[in-house]
Amino acid sequence: MEKTMDKIVALAKGRGFVYPGSEIYGGLANSWDYGPLGVEFKNNVKRAWWQKFVQECPYNVGLDAAILMNPEVWVASGHVGGFNDPLMDCKSCKERFRADKLIEDYVAENGLDIGPVEAMGKEEMEAFIAEHIVCPSCGKNDFTPIRQFNLMFKTFQGVNEDTAAQIYLRPETAQGIFVNFKNVLRTTRRKMPMGIGQIGKSFRNEITPGNFIFRIREFEQMELEFFCDPKEEFEWFNYWKDTCHNWLLSLGIHDENLKLRDHAQEELSHYSNATTDIEYRFPFGWGELWGIADRTDFDLKAHMQHSGESLEYLDPSTGQKYVPYCIEPSLGADRVTLAFLCEAYDEETLENGDVRTVLHFHPALAPFKAAVLPLQKKLAETSDKLFADLAKHFNVDYDLAGSIGKRYRREDEIGTPYCVTVDFDSLEDGCVTVRDRDTMAQERISMDAVKQFIEDKLVF
Amino acid sequence: MEKTMDKIVALAKGRGFVYPGSEIYGGLANSWDYGPLGVEFKNNVKRAWWQKFVQECPYNVGLDAAILMNPEVWVASGHVGGFNDPLMDCKSCKERFRADKLIEDYVAENGLDIGPVEAMGKEEMEAFIAEHIVCPSCGKNDFTPIRQFNLMFKTFQGVNEDTAAQIYLRPETAQGIFVNFKNVLRTTRRKMPMGIGQIGKSFRNEITPGNFIFRIREFEQMELEFFCDPKEEFEWFNYWKDTCHNWLLSLGIHDENLKLRDHAQEELSHYSNATTDIEYRFPFGWGELWGIADRTDFDLKAHMQHSGESLEYLDPSTGQKYVPYCIEPSLGADRVTLAFLCEAYDEETLENGDVRTVLHFHPALAPFKAAVLPLQKKLAETSDKLFADLAKHFNVDYDLAGSIGKRYRREDEIGTPYCVTVDFDSLEDGCVTVRDRDTMAQERISMDAVKQFIEDKLVF
Repeated sequence: MEKTMDKIVALAKGRGFVYPGSEIYGGLANSWDYGPLGVEFKNNVKRAWWQKFVQECPYNVGLDAAILMNPEVWVASGHVGGFNDPLMDCKSCKERFRADKLIEDYVAENGLDIGPVEAMGKEEMEAFIAEHIVCPSCGKNDFTPIRQFNLMFKTFQGVNEDTAAQIYLRPETAQGIFVNFKNVLRTTRRKMPMGIGQIGKSFRNEITPGNFIFRIREFEQMELEFFCDPKEEFEWFNYWKDTCHNWLLSLGIHDENLKLRDHAQEELSHYSNATTDIEYRFPFGWGELWGIADRTDFDLKAHMQHSGESLEYLDPSTGQKYVPYCIEPSLGADRVTLAFLCEAYDEETLENGDVRTVLHFHPALAPFKAAVLPLQKKLAETSDKLFADLAKHFNVDYDLAGSIGKRYRREDEIGTPYCVTVDFDSLEDGCVTVRDRDTMAQERISMDAVKQFIEDKLVF
Repeated sequence: MEKTMDKIVALAKGRGFVYPGSEIYGGLANSWDYGPLGVEFKNNVKRAWWQKFVQECPYNVGLDAAILMNPEVWVASGHVGGFNDPLMDCKSCKERFRADKLIEDYVAENGLDIGPVEAMGKEEMEAFIAEHIVCPSCGKNDFTPIRQFNLMFKTFQGVNEDTAAQIYLRPETAQGIFVNFKNVLRTTRRKMPMGIGQIGKSFRNEITPGNFIFRIREFEQMELEFFCDPKEEFEWFNYWKDTCHNWLLSLGIHDENLKLRDHAQEELSHYSNATTDIEYRFPFGWGELWGIADRTDFDLKAHMQHSGESLEYLDPSTGQKYVPYCIEPSLGADRVTLAFLCEAYDEETLENGDVRTVLHFHPALAPFKAAVLPLQKKLAETSDKLFADLAKHFNVDYDLAGSIGKRYRREDEIGTPYCVTVDFDSLEDGCVTVRDRDTMAQERISMDAVKQFIEDKLVF
């Protein structure tokens, strides 16, 4: 079975996971809407993250900061000055490119090792391109100089569209946490170590979005900023690296599709003492899911300097004051949702030679936990009652149409872990047939026991 | 006890429900961040809506459309042309006003009945103001003509900041549903009636936001678009009006603080056959929570005309084609969160004369469902285990500091419905003392039974 993006995207569009955004108007470049199954699926992914990284973790609390922030935040964070893509145009065919991507592609194609492209300056990139690279569109080597293009979306708040009113759509959720560090500390009376988790939309005006929902301009992040004593930075860095890795494994990602890539010393950002990327083997190649970075005290210090507020922490046990170090595991919600979708996708040849498409989602992530399938319309009353009972606890499908075999196939294709068939015996014995998506094994259990049977499978 | 906004805002800021946005940079006009308690509380409100309006409802499915849409959507919906505030400046003191608000305030102050202000044209408003109203700031009667100010936030997608690249932050979530009507119908194989629910951020560049999180520029909506046979419009309109009303009551809002205001014939929008506002009695006065509108086939027809796509529905039982009518219950998530907070707020004088502040949240909405309180530090091991067991199922607080009485007060003030005290007897008998927030009654139950005891209270 070849697992391709084409197949996965077709299934996602066809069954209501993801639609092209604004489709009846011809779309909006690389924007996507989550359909009825997609919104449940992605919500489950977000809930699973929140459960492990906030709810169950005794150190951590949650936050939900606004997308629109005081623009000084982005001056302090470095985004106004430095959050740029290096763009250049081909003078001949007018096509526009990211200079760093041109170089990366060239280096990969030719198997060269020139060190990390991020470390190259503007002149260095221009010189390298002038010497080696031709326009991928027209084949000429005649580019404009690089100009820096800021990736933040701008807008205006208030009545006037002047510079004073210009604000940005946040390009990351992390800064909403840093500027609230003191508020959270004050109101929760927490001690170090303490983490603050947040899920929310961010926006980046990417020049070349792509690969379905892997790289999009409007995306959702799940970020934890974990503050600790500087002496414990590596201990906690390793703790969170393991926790992130285990979270993916516990929800059904196979380890052979994961790569933990530690950044080499020369690749590290100037403020980072350690960084690891967790990459997933997508059908289009390896792609970054999670960046886990030891950001030291860089962010809190930048905001101290820029705002004039003290963001120091007074350790009550030692009386010592310090600016905490911060470990940041930052995960793209859309990316990891796509990874879970790709991982779950399978085509299986059955004993009778038929092929079934099946999504082997972990039950905690499956859009529907169960489907209630009345064998005949006459059984609707009993089935409706079962649906209503179960739907109080989790999301349930209901399907009356077609043969049971066809209904099983439809539920397999959307990853419903349990099909619950109501038949005429059910009226007599109060039992139903529960069919397992993965093993296709069936067992007969009491209707009263179905809720608990399924809830037990949701644990991860 | 006087319930004032000052008290509620102070508690919200002091205990970590809501902080001023970007506070260390002096804020950003009327933006707010949800703190550790606020994010749990608001998430519970959103989950309670989703549970009743999507998950448990056999007619409805969910959706999560992008904030950034093709700008033609907003031409078709009428927002580009008509989503304006009528602004005028005082020529004397340069203060800026919404003309309709000036008139509404004047009419209310003087007990006049001039009919709905929304029905007045530009010239009519200008004439009324010239005749009756002076500037609230400087007392002069010398205003500029009205100019229409569009409330949509604009931004640019892509590298060029020209008109071709101009897009908007959505001012409502509803249009994301309408443009996906066909996609949802196709991929879910649903029949009428069918509803599509969505929760998400919307943005309106309001001139005069205010009243804490009641009117904000970046806000969250919970909208249902319920499509039905035009013959059944009033049946379903009434059904959803009742369902919305009952949802508020079931989560602890008292009926005397609610007002269902049916729009009179002359007040209805031209496309609406019926509209009811559900208003709540906030400490600052009555404010709209929910608008329930019979929007007929206005939206689908507008998108049919503008996009050229057919959004007709073929009724398989009659073979008849029609454009469904749409009933829209539209609820502000931040507003209803504020309503639940105001409703829950109380100050009670206890038998010993002390006053306790308490938030009487419905357990389903409370940020923490329980607090684990070890009587002494020596009991930490047992208490940690209990915390870990419970935190797998719902959000739990843990507090070791101070006398039990003080800890009870702190939990009362944040609305935790159950305090679970671990004492030395717990080590022997495996039981804990569970104290009820509202009655302050205590009962001793087995540690193993605490999870189920609390889960039973979360039903609404």
